[in-house]
Formats: sequence, structure tokens, C-alpha cells
Amino acid sequence: MKVKHVVAALSAIALSSGVLAQAKPEQLIKWRQSVMQVQGWSMARIKANVEGTYNKDQVIQAAHILQATANGGLGSLFPAGTEKGSGWHETRAKPEIFTDGDKVRELAGAFSKEANELAKVAAAGDAVAVKAQFGKVGQACKGCHDKFQAEEKK
Amino acid sequence: MKVKHVVAALSAIALSSGVLAQAKPEQLIKWRQSVMQVQGWSMARIKANVEGTYNKDQVIQAAHILQATANGGLGSLFPAGTEKGSGWHETRAKPEIFTDGDKVRELAGAFSKEANELAKVAAAGDAVAVKAQFGKVGQACKGCHDKFQAEEKK
Repeated sequence: MKVKHVVAALSAIALSSGVLAQAKPEQLIKWRQSVMQVQGWSMARIKANVEGTYNKDQVIQAAHILQATANGGLGSLFPAGTEKGSGWHETRAKPEIFTDGDKVRELAGAFSKEANELAKVAAAGDAVAVKAQFGKVGQACKGCHDKFQAEEKK
Repeated sequence: MKVKHVVAALSAIALSSGVLAQAKPEQLIKWRQSVMQVQGWSMARIKANVEGTYNKDQVIQAAHILQATANGGLGSLFPAGTEKGSGWHETRAKPEIFTDGDKVRELAGAFSKEANELAKVAAAGDAVAVKAQFGKVGQACKGCHDKFQAEEKK
């Protein structure tokens, strides 16, 4: 029943597909770690813009990447069989992300909602509004990391 | 004049910003290597869909990630000072990407064009059309890799 539960949780975010069956756990973990980095890059770019010289086009680019990845079916990168292992480094995913489907849905939904709103606000180009919404996206990132991501090993 | 030339080439793709000044070369290289992985994930998902059971929503998700990253200002991840070094691994960027601005613009523009078209075709949901456009995106990926990315060390 456990596998069924995990599958149900993840399919709420993204329907599974052949790619999951074909890709090795190491590759799946590498992909999800890469998504986090790309989101980190996008957040860093927006931060630099709202704290420094504001460039509307650049903020839109970064916001689109956040939006596309937030709605991109990240759940499919956490199938059963990837609870442990290494991609670029040892996975920091906590066991709960594979079992607590309700919480995964809640936090992924919150991130998606805030990222969609950021893309809208970025298109309008008001730096003050972007800064405020950027903060909300950051909180959504943190909410998921606090719950499902173990501390980085130094 | 060389630095000026590089800056001109990259600004065609994305205006540089504070984030470049703040981020270390290692981080910038890690980010660009991660973008390649995320694009690889998206291509693998679409491939699995067009070769197996077709899921329209999943293809749209992957196409949006390709579109957002293709138009996402990747050039800003290749500033002067990152010609050598390691992110997740030693950079495979060839020297030409830092000097041949015209070719960078041409190939980045081709990738962007094909990725935009893929997002449109994915939204329509015709698997045959998606497969054809997916092939064009793959060719655009390959065009840039052949020119600017060194072979992977085994």
C-alpha cells in the first residue's frame, strides 16, 4: 500500500510517464537537484534586481523560469526508489516527501500560486510590487524546504 | 576590446545585472550546468511521451520549461571569468562561446524560436506535430552543443 500511496501523492503534481520507468534514480535525483539550482538562480536574479538596478526584462525572464518549473511536475522527480541515493550529491529529500501526500500537495500548490502571481506582477513591471511578491515566493520555497529538505552538509 | 566584445555578445541574450557581479564563477557554472540538465529532463519527458503514451499536460509542462529557459537569458551565465572552472564538474564550454558573439546570437535565437514553437504546438496537443517540432528543438540543442560544448569526459 505504501507504493500506491506515494504514487497517488505524486500524481497530484504530475502524472507519471515512461520517463520515470526509463530514468535511473541517479539521473532523477540529478534532475531535481538541478531544478532547485535553476530556481535558486532565478531567485538570485530577481533579488539583485529589486535590491539594485531594476531591469524589467530580466525579472520577467527569471519569473517565467520560476513559473514554468513551479508548474512543471516536479513531483515526477520523486518516485519511489529515489528516497536515497546521489545525483550531483547525496539527496537531501526527507522521507516525508515520499509519504505525506497531503502536505506535498499543499506546499507545492502554495509555491505554484505564488510563482504564478510573481509572473503577473513581473509583467506589470512595478519594482515595489515585485519585491513584495518575491518575498512571498521565497516564503513558499522555505515552507517546502523546511518540511522536506534536510540541512546541507558542510 | 576582448571583454567588451564578450559583453556585447552576451547582452544580446540577456542584460547583465548585479547577480553577475555578486555570484562566484563556481556558482555561475553550476547554474548553467543545471539549466542544461533541466532542459535535458524536459526533452526526455517529451521524448517518452511522443514515443509512448501521450499525456498532453505533461508535454505542456516540459515545453514551458524549455521555452522559459530558452528565453531566460542564459548568456548571463557565461560572463568573462567563467571560461575555466568547475560547477558540478569542470566546465565543457568551449572558448568560442566567450568570443564568437555573432554565432552565439544566431544559435541562441534558433533555439528560442524552436522552443517557442514547441510550446505552441504542445498547447494544441497533436502528438504527431509535437514529435516533429520536438525534433527541431533537438536539432537546435545539438547545433549549439556541437559548436560550443566540448565532449563529455568519460
